[in-house]
Amino acid sequence: MSEPHLHESHPQVVARLKRAQGHLRSVIEMIEAGKPCVDVAQQLHAVEKAVGQAKRTLIQDHVDHCLEDAVVAGGRDQRRSLDEFRAITKYL
Amino acid sequence: MSEPHLHESHPQVVARLKRAQGHLRSVIEMIEAGKPCVDVAQQLHAVEKAVGQAKRTLIQDHVDHCLEDAVVAGGRDQRRSLDEFRAITKYL
Repeated sequence: MSEPHLHESHPQVVARLKRAQGHLRSVIEMIEAGKPCVDVAQQLHAVEKAVGQAKRTLIQDHVDHCLEDAVVAGGRDQRRSLDEFRAITKYL
Repeated sequence: MSEPHLHESHPQVVARLKRAQGHLRSVIEMIEAGKPCVDVAQQLHAVEKAVGQAKRTLIQDHVDHCLEDAVVAGGRDQRRSLDEFRAITKYL
């Protein structure tokens, strides 16, 4: 799969990551303003989960396509799809 | 602990989170540029881990101070420190 990867979920993943970016910016401001650590930790936890969720959505969508490609493809392409499948699932 | 929370680790945590912010920005650009999903997933995984690590550093530093406060404080302050200790460890 060396062609550009454009999956259905990408606009949704980008939207989530942009929200996470804004959220992260506000967490940095909270720390700089000396807000209580419990509140900062809670917000930082939410950012971490949001990034992880976006990552899993991206991987899940990719794996779905990977497996479809592997089924229809034969020989070397199938091998490559399966290698890529193994590579990406490391990041789940 | 209602006074502003300024711990030794805060500048380091802020620096890490600012790096994570830049990293997250570049991941969004990767997706928008149609970069391979495996590469995007790897970078997103790194951002997630960086945010989690910064969070743990913040919590760890806070808990160290919390426990010290709880030991030196008596009565209601000790109770409050321990309640806060329980609250923040939820986000580990």
